[in-house]
Amino acid sequence: MLVLSFPQLEHDGFCQNPFFECLVAEVPEESKSKEGFTVVGYSFFFYTYSSRKGRSVYLEDLYVMQEFRGNGIGRGLLSKVAEVAKKKQCAQLQLSVFNWNTPARDFYAAKGAQDLTVTEGRHFIRFDGQNLDNLANEAPKD
Amino acid sequence: MLVLSFPQLEHDGFCQNPFFECLVAEVPEESKSKEGFTVVGYSFFFYTYSSRKGRSVYLEDLYVMQEFRGNGIGRGLLSKVAEVAKKKQCAQLQLSVFNWNTPARDFYAAKGAQDLTVTEGRHFIRFDGQNLDNLANEAPKD
Repeated sequence: MLVLSFPQLEHDGFCQNPFFECLVAEVPEESKSKEGFTVVGYSFFFYTYSSRKGRSVYLEDLYVMQEFRGNGIGRGLLSKVAEVAKKKQCAQLQLSVFNWNTPARDFYAAKGAQDLTVTEGRHFIRFDGQNLDNLANEAPKD
Repeated sequence: MLVLSFPQLEHDGFCQNPFFECLVAEVPEESKSKEGFTVVGYSFFFYTYSSRKGRSVYLEDLYVMQEFRGNGIGRGLLSKVAEVAKKKQCAQLQLSVFNWNTPARDFYAAKGAQDLTVTEGRHFIRFDGQNLDNLANEAPKD
């Protein structure tokens, strides 16, 4: 479910201090998708920061259309994001993966990535909706 | 170990498009720390993005000096970050916690946060150092 409106997404990606960046994978016109698209995949990422290690890239989404999978497009998009990370002097590239996604976990492990949830016991925590509102409402006055 | 230099940290926090923001907790001069500091805690955060839900805040560090713990300063800093998140129209506030840190995990759970590692099996993956270089070196040419 897309909660976000397209105008908002467009604004946040193309405003003066964009919240995210994308790289797209394009195929030649003669290889276009069944629906007629030449953009067949994308990576969606942004910059984060470690107070010890400095700039980082976080890869939020990596997507390739079903009919174009298995051709190294996802791998190419991931490597291009790593290249952007190096150009922007980022010390690390981070992302998340679901534990049931064994092919992805094996792929990242084979490439030398650390699974910080396994090695350090690191858990993702999220506040949203009413619990985020409640937390904000408890904020001390300035 | 701090890998980052202080001039770099200062640049990245105070440049035109800062990579992170901080809120600090200050005590009155008469309550200063043993070493003479009045800034006794801080939160260190930045903006991330979900392609489905939009803007988010990620709380990277939350620190309170040992001698000032147990007074609600950490809780106040967390709530202030939630307040910033709401002001900036963020749909979520995210952070990570180590699985051995039971007090923190219990605190977040009591406040209604989801542990996405438990509920969705979400794992943190990191590329850095040589494996990040290798990945970047495999990038297809433009």
